[in-house]
Amino acid sequence: MPARIAMGVAYDGSAFQGWQLQHDEPTVQLVVERALSRVADHPVRVHCAGRTDTGVHAAGQVIHFDANAERAVHAWVLGGNSNLPDEVSMLWARRVDGEFHARFSATGRRYRYAIWNRWTRPALDRRRLAWWHYPLDERRMAEGARHLLGEHDFTSFRAVACQAKHPVREIREIEVWRDGDRVLLEVAANAFLHHMVRNIAGTLIAVGQGERDPDWVGEVLEGRDRMLAGVTAPSAGLCLQEVEYPERFAIPGGAGPAFPPR
Amino acid sequence: MPARIAMGVAYDGSAFQGWQLQHDEPTVQLVVERALSRVADHPVRVHCAGRTDTGVHAAGQVIHFDANAERAVHAWVLGGNSNLPDEVSMLWARRVDGEFHARFSATGRRYRYAIWNRWTRPALDRRRLAWWHYPLDERRMAEGARHLLGEHDFTSFRAVACQAKHPVREIREIEVWRDGDRVLLEVAANAFLHHMVRNIAGTLIAVGQGERDPDWVGEVLEGRDRMLAGVTAPSAGLCLQEVEYPERFAIPGGAGPAFPPR
Repeated sequence: MPARIAMGVAYDGSAFQGWQLQHDEPTVQLVVERALSRVADHPVRVHCAGRTDTGVHAAGQVIHFDANAERAVHAWVLGGNSNLPDEVSMLWARRVDGEFHARFSATGRRYRYAIWNRWTRPALDRRRLAWWHYPLDERRMAEGARHLLGEHDFTSFRAVACQAKHPVREIREIEVWRDGDRVLLEVAANAFLHHMVRNIAGTLIAVGQGERDPDWVGEVLEGRDRMLAGVTAPSAGLCLQEVEYPERFAIPGGAGPAFPPR
Repeated sequence: MPARIAMGVAYDGSAFQGWQLQHDEPTVQLVVERALSRVADHPVRVHCAGRTDTGVHAAGQVIHFDANAERAVHAWVLGGNSNLPDEVSMLWARRVDGEFHARFSATGRRYRYAIWNRWTRPALDRRRLAWWHYPLDERRMAEGARHLLGEHDFTSFRAVACQAKHPVREIREIEVWRDGDRVLLEVAANAFLHHMVRNIAGTLIAVGQGERDPDWVGEVLEGRDRMLAGVTAPSAGLCLQEVEYPERFAIPGGAGPAFPPR
């Protein structure tokens, strides 16, 4: 009897051409399906909550798949990890009912964008950071970001190639703060349009370096025109932190528990 | 007229066989000397504050060298960085008087040790973390660490190969705390013996996982015998954060200013 399994996955996106399968390109989906197929002993097709682009990282991606094999839930994690390259790691596994879908059941996503704000380029953690070598005022950025809170038409922050049916999304939280040489942006929404966080980051960077006023972010939003917003900030700074689901699915938040309950 | 230059350097140690020159091995000293020699237009010999081992990182290493070439201080940073591989970055440069020596003038060093404390291996930031897959109680570790504060004979935490003249060092600060799935240890001392931080980390891990009591750390210290302490924790978790000098040299702390004064 087939069982539906949900899992948490973390990965260093710098090693991959994004999440989604593409012929022979190294993608996260490819290596995850290969690893889980070995554990299941049959081909496994995996669905994820957020199809991250080339170079984008995940600390709390969620996937699901159907397996004919009977395995203890920990076996999916441990077996998966022993068949995965170093850049990818399974975080947890849960048996879920057949209604659960990693993408369509998700009610919220949280991304973090990390900027190395220094005149010299990053060496340590360079794959995880976007480098901006002009000084940024993170308080101005936080002030500009506030205009994006709530339910809006985010056309101005949407990639031309975006395939979403409509451009309305609800930003529930948006914060900008500094930690030493890093400026961090965290955004939680019900869902995101293609490149939405990177376009928000590029727009807030223009505010942070004084090129634009914080109120300009509200004007960009109201203009509903991609040409109004800032550049698409580099993929390396972006990380999918967490996916949210209705409580009944009992999906752990973020990376899940550090240690499984005994 | 030759000038003595001090510089800050950050590096991802996972790419190198440590700091020190070794024939044809890729070492940080090798790539730094090559880069600065190009900027100087003559061979440059560099001295560092702390000769880090294979795989050990630096966020605030300090070096000095003598140059016959007249260069604006920023040229050493920008020129250095354009001749360095991605894994190494110059942070700042200062002209210093001939008395200054990156190693012998240093009056304090600060290291951080980062442990990924989770049942599943790290994927993101894996080169920067030591993985410990049994639960650690960071409060017990902090309690044990307190025994090491002050001036002591650290023979128990000293590598057999250590070439220091005597084993007495002064630990001025030692902290252990948790940040999500990470347990972090930070130690500041006048100087360190070979493997001292990694041996302290290995000893505190034994306390953190409940194998030993916090007071045992004091017994290990008093025993003055390397056989009493814990294992040498892996190099990947270690990072040289900061080097301290007498104020008259005007050496910036940590990574130095994010942006040079205008």
